[in-house]
Amino acid sequence: MTTVLVVNSGSSSLKYQLLDDAEQVLASGLVERIGGAGSIRHRGPGGEVTVDADVPDHRAALALMMRTCTEHGPQLAPDVVGHRVVHGGARFSAPVVVDDEVEAAVEELATLAPLHNPPGLLGIRAARATFPGVPQVAVFDTAFHATIPPEASTYAIDAGLAAERGIRRYGFHGTSHEYVSQEAARFLGHAGRFVVLHLGNGASACAVSGGRSVATSMGLTPLEGLVMGTRGGDLDPGALLHLLRTGMSVDEVDTLLNRRSGLAGLTGTGDLRDVLAAAEGGDERAELALDVYAHRIRGYVGAYLAHLGGLDALVFTAGVGENSPEVRARVVEGLGHLGPTLDPARNEARGRGARLVSPDDAAVPVLVVPTDEELQIARHALAVTAG
Amino acid sequence: MTTVLVVNSGSSSLKYQLLDDAEQVLASGLVERIGGAGSIRHRGPGGEVTVDADVPDHRAALALMMRTCTEHGPQLAPDVVGHRVVHGGARFSAPVVVDDEVEAAVEELATLAPLHNPPGLLGIRAARATFPGVPQVAVFDTAFHATIPPEASTYAIDAGLAAERGIRRYGFHGTSHEYVSQEAARFLGHAGRFVVLHLGNGASACAVSGGRSVATSMGLTPLEGLVMGTRGGDLDPGALLHLLRTGMSVDEVDTLLNRRSGLAGLTGTGDLRDVLAAAEGGDERAELALDVYAHRIRGYVGAYLAHLGGLDALVFTAGVGENSPEVRARVVEGLGHLGPTLDPARNEARGRGARLVSPDDAAVPVLVVPTDEELQIARHALAVTAG
Ligand SMILES: Nc1ncnc2c1ncn2[C@@H]1O[C@H](COP(=O)(O)OP(=O)(O)O)[C@@H](O)[C@H]1O
Ligand SMILES: Nc1ncnc2c1ncn2[C@@H]1O[C@H](COP(=O)(O)OP(=O)(O)O)[C@@H](O)[C@H]1O
Repeated sequence: MTTVLVVNSGSSSLKYQLLDDAEQVLASGLVERIGGAGSIRHRGPGGEVTVDADVPDHRAALALMMRTCTEHGPQLAPDVVGHRVVHGGARFSAPVVVDDEVEAAVEELATLAPLHNPPGLLGIRAARATFPGVPQVAVFDTAFHATIPPEASTYAIDAGLAAERGIRRYGFHGTSHEYVSQEAARFLGHAGRFVVLHLGNGASACAVSGGRSVATSMGLTPLEGLVMGTRGGDLDPGALLHLLRTGMSVDEVDTLLNRRSGLAGLTGTGDLRDVLAAAEGGDERAELALDVYAHRIRGYVGAYLAHLGGLDALVFTAGVGENSPEVRARVVEGLGHLGPTLDPARNEARGRGARLVSPDDAAVPVLVVPTDEELQIARHALAVTAG
Repeated sequence: MTTVLVVNSGSSSLKYQLLDDAEQVLASGLVERIGGAGSIRHRGPGGEVTVDADVPDHRAALALMMRTCTEHGPQLAPDVVGHRVVHGGARFSAPVVVDDEVEAAVEELATLAPLHNPPGLLGIRAARATFPGVPQVAVFDTAFHATIPPEASTYAIDAGLAAERGIRRYGFHGTSHEYVSQEAARFLGHAGRFVVLHLGNGASACAVSGGRSVATSMGLTPLEGLVMGTRGGDLDPGALLHLLRTGMSVDEVDTLLNRRSGLAGLTGTGDLRDVLAAAEGGDERAELALDVYAHRIRGYVGAYLAHLGGLDALVFTAGVGENSPEVRARVVEGLGHLGPTLDPARNEARGRGARLVSPDDAAVPVLVVPTDEELQIARHALAVTAG
């Protein structure tokens, strides 16, 4: 039996999942508060355990994972390790086996993704040291979007500067958009023209045609596009100049855009459940935030409909997209003239797998497809090393 | 006979037009190189004359205009003067008669529009001094967009900060979008759901429903939205942070966004005729620039179709929109599935007034409507002072 360990490494946390080649999850878990007094939550064949432990760094996090597996199962001897890496830049348009040179390239890309690439690199380094001889595969959030045509990936700024500094639309959430669009194609029996809405803490829209990404809402960085938990998405570049000219520093603007924007900026909380509850209670700021959130999404659906030349399915995924009938209703309401409509009972019904939430005769079917980035990373890791 | 003088004042130039209440243009002209050795080009009943003269300031520009009118006609004794003012902020949602208090408010708004409001103010001050006792009416580029609903005008950033600093979508080119959508409604016999594309050196899209603006692509400043001559429109806010973090100053970023972006940034020239000629000659950068330009517009048409709930006409205006069949073709090509199509012969034919460029049976008519901001300002100036 071949097993794959999938590692999703954040700056102070590390998620892992062990899968076999039949795509069964053998174990999964999360190490938190790396850098000090941390803990592991591990789910294996014997159920879930939580253990506190000192976790000075990512290498210690993997050691803790190993120890926990030895004690509570399953036996951990992966044939390949797959890593989530956020930014692959212009260089990585597909998963790749990590060697020193790839590791150096991922490190260099940290200038483009200072918040996101360094933790991925920590995970890669720790895993290379922990599992010497085991192939490590880097799977990039940007790679699925490598097929976006130049007219959609080019920002209209000085071309020389853009080339020199790598400024173009890369897009993110690619592993999710790829997985979800493949599952949607399987569900529908054809890979047509889909708009996939990944609505989690981060959020992005993707136009997928024949299995390929042709447009997406995140750009050079994960700050562009839809309204998110704490990020605001699209913003007049002139607004940044205005803030910088009226006394804010670059660091303050950075904090504003990454942490004091989006739902959190509009309402005080970035958790969509809380925003929904507040709106229910008559809070006007929450109501406005939901309106802005849904309006932005509808604009992207319309834009992508224009680019795709037609729409064969609208697909919701991630925390909000999978779990909130209310947000789906707010989005799809007002899109009826473009084809997508909801069946209220189907939309309200809970479910686990890919499912239809539109009427059977909807002009454009609306689907909910639970995302599974770990599984997609495992598939890629296996495929790359099988060759 | 009532006459209106319309003044459109730039930092170093001043355009004027004299109209009567039957909307006939009695005279028009342009004073250039204000601040030194300038000149006036004046067109009156006797044809066109050009005169060189010293023009130290905007007051001198108006004096030169007066002198030229006295010498070459027509007699200049306006009953009202209408001024183009770019930014009306949250305060001015309609044209207003200028008094000291209004003048002070326009001056304050210069923090939001540092490039655009100060020259308008110079024109107002010069005209108040030159025509004492004549009512001066300020007509704001932002005013037509005051009807945009909150979900489309709210940026998803910290709400307190946004309120404090006036950060929201205002939109520009409002006088043009209003005039053009009214002419389109007159042409079609109904004020339905239009997308108006104002494509000049600056460029913006506007969704108009029942005569009211419900969405537009420019935002807090004229930097957002479509690809323009020297401005790039939409850009990942993270790209600005990236540039600022990798060594560019705020001034350099400002210059990049205002002058080294858009068609100029992508090709070296911001004049669309030159870009078309270069593309014709096989220049790949020019071809890409046109692709980016048209792709961006199509995205907005799709987004506004979503917001409008349907589309009753697509309307082209301004320098590019009125004069370039090729750009219209590049935009409308690929939108056929949404309704708009072109009749190639109509699209190529030259014409002066509002005209149809789609087949008679097009699902969505496509119009060319020449804009006339001076006329619209004159109408507003007359209407405001008639009351
Ligand atoms: N039942 C629900 N209704 C509405 N929102 C939900 C629901 N369950 C989860 N969410 C939201 O999903 C978001 C997290 O999505 P998720 O995809 O897990 O995030 P991430 O982007 O971090 O992977 C949170 O804003 C949370 O409030
Ligand atoms: N025949 C034409 N074909 C293509 N573009 C044209 C044509 N005539 C004018 N233009 C373009 O129109 C633009 C100027 O538009 P205009 O509306 O006059 O500008 P402004 O925004 O300064 O008012 C320029 O880029 C110019 O190249």
